[in-house]
Amino acid sequence: MKKSDSNVVNLFEQSNQGVQKIVLIDSMMMKRGGAISNPVLAYETWGKMNESRDNIVIILTGLSASSHVASHSSNPNPGWWEGIVGPDKAIDTNKFYVVCINSLGSCFGSTGPASLNEITGEPFRLTFPELTIDDMATATKLLLDKLKIQQINTLIGPSMGGMHALALIIQNNGLVRNFIGISTAFQSLPYAIAIRSLQREVIRKDPLWKNGYYTPDNPPLNGVRIARKLGMISYRSANEWSQRFGRKKSSKNNITQNTFGIENTGFEFEIESYLEHLAIKFQDVFDANCYLYLSRSIDWFDIIDYGASSKEVLGKTGLESAMILGIESDILFPIHQQKELAEYLSTNSTKVTYKSLDCIQGHDSFLVDIERFSQEIRCYLKDI
Amino acid sequence: MKKSDSNVVNLFEQSNQGVQKIVLIDSMMMKRGGAISNPVLAYETWGKMNESRDNIVIILTGLSASSHVASHSSNPNPGWWEGIVGPDKAIDTNKFYVVCINSLGSCFGSTGPASLNEITGEPFRLTFPELTIDDMATATKLLLDKLKIQQINTLIGPSMGGMHALALIIQNNGLVRNFIGISTAFQSLPYAIAIRSLQREVIRKDPLWKNGYYTPDNPPLNGVRIARKLGMISYRSANEWSQRFGRKKSSKNNITQNTFGIENTGFEFEIESYLEHLAIKFQDVFDANCYLYLSRSIDWFDIIDYGASSKEVLGKTGLESAMILGIESDILFPIHQQKELAEYLSTNSTKVTYKSLDCIQGHDSFLVDIERFSQEIRCYLKDI
Repeated sequence: MKKSDSNVVNLFEQSNQGVQKIVLIDSMMMKRGGAISNPVLAYETWGKMNESRDNIVIILTGLSASSHVASHSSNPNPGWWEGIVGPDKAIDTNKFYVVCINSLGSCFGSTGPASLNEITGEPFRLTFPELTIDDMATATKLLLDKLKIQQINTLIGPSMGGMHALALIIQNNGLVRNFIGISTAFQSLPYAIAIRSLQREVIRKDPLWKNGYYTPDNPPLNGVRIARKLGMISYRSANEWSQRFGRKKSSKNNITQNTFGIENTGFEFEIESYLEHLAIKFQDVFDANCYLYLSRSIDWFDIIDYGASSKEVLGKTGLESAMILGIESDILFPIHQQKELAEYLSTNSTKVTYKSLDCIQGHDSFLVDIERFSQEIRCYLKDI
Repeated sequence: MKKSDSNVVNLFEQSNQGVQKIVLIDSMMMKRGGAISNPVLAYETWGKMNESRDNIVIILTGLSASSHVASHSSNPNPGWWEGIVGPDKAIDTNKFYVVCINSLGSCFGSTGPASLNEITGEPFRLTFPELTIDDMATATKLLLDKLKIQQINTLIGPSMGGMHALALIIQNNGLVRNFIGISTAFQSLPYAIAIRSLQREVIRKDPLWKNGYYTPDNPPLNGVRIARKLGMISYRSANEWSQRFGRKKSSKNNITQNTFGIENTGFEFEIESYLEHLAIKFQDVFDANCYLYLSRSIDWFDIIDYGASSKEVLGKTGLESAMILGIESDILFPIHQQKELAEYLSTNSTKVTYKSLDCIQGHDSFLVDIERFSQEIRCYLKDI
């Protein structure tokens, strides 16, 4: 990957300490057609594999996360699940060997649309083949083979990572013993598809997107930033924002006669400033084309592709146990999808725990309500 | 208003039959500063005022509606509430004299940012003063005076129209006897503000918006269309779309290797085609600047501007009765806001009926579940 591919890559390279990368295979065929030469996955590890190799926990991520789930000696920056993963934490790295994998298609070290195509010497951009969650699972299995991991004690996937996990489980009977699915689903439903479709349209309509051929110094920042704000609206909840922001005005409030005519005039309401702040952080680290590919892969995911019915497919996972955690305030992966997933996974041989949590932070609760998620995950891992 | 102001205006003029317009006053001061010379409101009427003038029903509209609430002899096109308003319908035009008013700031005949500024000979665009819901109510009262309406039997307002109605009621004690508020609120909360803020940002970032100075033949269609799609996501519900669309593919499905790279390739999922279809209809009739102004006026609305607390203000409306209808699946004006509004309006002298309806069409249910709304409104109007 060229350092100049985009500002995203530059920023990534700066915080890349401790990320390991492995070339998976000479050529990987993709589900919807095409192939990738020498695909790479990026990952980080915590703790040590024990001799019996039965303490392996694999974490698969949501759309926007890197493999940096927690700090470690090579990179002391806090990870995206710093409160959950570490010594004596819910996912105890004194006990477990934890591997967090950056999905195929992402822009944090794994091969994706922002990566260099070895054949052309240019970034793939839209020449990257169409990406599915199933391809992510194929790549992840190749990485596990390279790491000589033949069995996973517990596979953990929030959001898109849960879909990725389900695909990995279904593709590889016997590979995974236990599964924690968080705010995830076995197929995408139209409301979530609509939200993601609109995010992609905003990026595609940014003139700087240029059919994917934006330049490193001039990426479609408006598109990515607005897409991220729409993401945040779907990730959180109305109740949380009412409690947190109410009708508070921004401290940088700068009311002018023509509120709509002036750039960078500041946002009047605190909720607007909050979204702007978060979205600017995102626009500076995430590649637009990768976002499009990952987003669409979620829309396409449907476990029924593996059999006659979702129930039939999920009824023969071979899992020993699973825990499905859902959030009542989640509008993106609503609670009824968690319940259905838990029901379908549950069989005579697979013991399933289903929890409907009343956190108010919506889909993102697993990143925010650390106390609640620590408790649930600690309790589950103690029993297995 | 020049015919060439925008394609919006041209389209409007074509379906303008039966719309009446009145100049309200020489100059109207605006709440947040500035004034408008010779403001005009557009309205349509149905039925006849009786001799005792006690059969007057006024309908105030949501953000995007015109005064054409129902067909009439001058304009037989179906109105936006055709199933509710008409002879023998829930709002019975054999019995009531019905007036539907296009809000100040809109682009369907009333004075707004798309109107011609008489002083400059140019459309106002962003020189239009900042618009509040309270200004809408001020203008509406001036229209009522011109129409010699001193008392309203029943004032009906869905969504933004409910806010407009509340402002009119509070500004004019004794003017309104009965009030039907539908999917509305006495203040905007941050989740809804965030959604509208993002819609406006999408329009403002469309290069064709040009700080409001778009040309009639080249308006910011992408911005308006995408804003409308985000609107639809906030107006409907996940359950409705799951039942209606599921994961159905569009009949115009045209999968290509580069789904994201090709314009007008068609949308793969039916939910995407549905949104595109509705949003294109909207982009062709609604003026971008008017949208910005109306949208922001909703954010700003807070009944507390009229007193020490919302409860205190709403406790002295002087209404004889009110009915507050809310929808459990509404994410834009959530049900708890309806409940609170009903509680605050209820006093010894104001009898309030509160209904929480389980329609699945979200905020837009009043436009879709005609049977349910007919029943509630018919029943209420029979009793008053």
